[in-house]
Amino acid sequence: MAKIIDGAAIAATIRTEIKEAVLRLKAEHGVTPGLATVLVGDNPASATYVRNKRKACAEVGIASFGYELPASTTQDEVMRLLQELGSRDDVHGILVQLPLPAHLDEQAILAAVPLHKDVDGFNPVNLGLLGVKGRQAPFAPCTPQGCIELLERSDIRIAGRRAVVLGRSTIVGLPVALMLLARDATVTICHSKTPNIASITRTADILVAAIGKPRFVTGDMVKAGVVVIDVGINRVPDASNPSGSRVVGDVDFDEVSEEASAITPVPGGVGPMTIAMLLKNTLIAAQRRVMG
Amino acid sequence: MAKIIDGAAIAATIRTEIKEAVLRLKAEHGVTPGLATVLVGDNPASATYVRNKRKACAEVGIASFGYELPASTTQDEVMRLLQELGSRDDVHGILVQLPLPAHLDEQAILAAVPLHKDVDGFNPVNLGLLGVKGRQAPFAPCTPQGCIELLERSDIRIAGRRAVVLGRSTIVGLPVALMLLARDATVTICHSKTPNIASITRTADILVAAIGKPRFVTGDMVKAGVVVIDVGINRVPDASNPSGSRVVGDVDFDEVSEEASAITPVPGGVGPMTIAMLLKNTLIAAQRRVMG
Repeated sequence: MAKIIDGAAIAATIRTEIKEAVLRLKAEHGVTPGLATVLVGDNPASATYVRNKRKACAEVGIASFGYELPASTTQDEVMRLLQELGSRDDVHGILVQLPLPAHLDEQAILAAVPLHKDVDGFNPVNLGLLGVKGRQAPFAPCTPQGCIELLERSDIRIAGRRAVVLGRSTIVGLPVALMLLARDATVTICHSKTPNIASITRTADILVAAIGKPRFVTGDMVKAGVVVIDVGINRVPDASNPSGSRVVGDVDFDEVSEEASAITPVPGGVGPMTIAMLLKNTLIAAQRRVMG
Repeated sequence: MAKIIDGAAIAATIRTEIKEAVLRLKAEHGVTPGLATVLVGDNPASATYVRNKRKACAEVGIASFGYELPASTTQDEVMRLLQELGSRDDVHGILVQLPLPAHLDEQAILAAVPLHKDVDGFNPVNLGLLGVKGRQAPFAPCTPQGCIELLERSDIRIAGRRAVVLGRSTIVGLPVALMLLARDATVTICHSKTPNIASITRTADILVAAIGKPRFVTGDMVKAGVVVIDVGINRVPDASNPSGSRVVGDVDFDEVSEEASAITPVPGGVGPMTIAMLLKNTLIAAQRRVMG
């Protein structure tokens, strides 16, 4: 049976570390890390995500500044807000909640977040730099960084290992592949157009699943001893649950945990790490400002 | 025996196409594509590269503007020049010859080349966007783009194939891997820290070698029918040659061409494509300006 990589516990440890570092930063430098959240439109899921992020900030002593703009907001208005937030001394990190309404140019808006405040790591400059050894991006995007941190805090070696990433999104698959590469893994990126995917996943020492297909990775698709990071969050029907559904990952946990040496559960694996990494990046942004 | 992918002939065809397109652009819009080359310091190899690029421009009717700055040039001076070139209407492309003197911040300088004039494709934003399907970077870097164009003009299918890239430099390995990925290949990136590399190269339908090790890829490291793109340019001793040396690739051509279905020679494979892609990008930059 695999060791369970307990993301909830690791994230809790990280949040405690952040809370202590925030207190030190206040005591020694009089600086409170600040995160500005920008929410455009009235997507209820997005509103919930932003609320959870601001709540998590409050719990570790990070100030948050919420900007909620109507769905009719123009590109210029968003760009002007980002410019203002970019110049504010009390705002160390800026998060633009995605997705944005369709009339806005998401790429241009993400590129307008100043690099030193891009705590979400979504500025495309950051993406390009992730794969470059010894020239780290200012900030890595939070979910991929959470995957890496789960490996590192579980003392799982990355260098020299074969890593297979399922999925190539700019949010998870591609950046996590680049981050594994920069840490000296030999990386293969698979996707919806990959034939005979099992023949590739079976070569993996480390398997990251981020394709959004419930229980896609089955026991026969992995080799014994693999380390599995499951980024999937899929809601499937479940009559035994009062809500009528439950959340599963991209990995068939029951089957794969029989083969793996370590595995993240869903929920309670990568999920809790994403917000922890956002808090960590915001703290680092504030620390860098203090250090000049 | 493998089909030889004749880069010199393909590059010549491309240059002829560019020459005709430049004539049309002049006739129909009165616009001559212009490339500014920026050379800092007195590295003789760099001076030769720049001279060859400007000569190639002249041959297809592209105007070139050479800027040769002393090795003592400051970061600010380079940045001011880039700003000036960025605003000039007759300069459609800007090329900063690398390497830059050590006191200059190469990354900041490359990032200061405006994206719509970055015909060398070295702005890190471009790198990040290369792997993103359906959201192509403004310009791809010239050597990786040359690799892709050799495949495409040889009617070699990329989608759904297994591609293995040896090397992860930001100049070649990483961007070519991302470009193959965006074209639906399943991509594995190997490097100096990859153990048992032959077991991976043997799975490749398309193998791109860009590691700078002479004749590293031997016949037993590939499977029958593989397509091989050899980016290596290595000078090795050769007593039979009047100069005492000759240039070989990263692939043992004699051995591997017995196994491959198609292969690029060195010299005469990828090499001639690099300048052809620079010319093509400069033309495209001018065409985009005309189209508004």
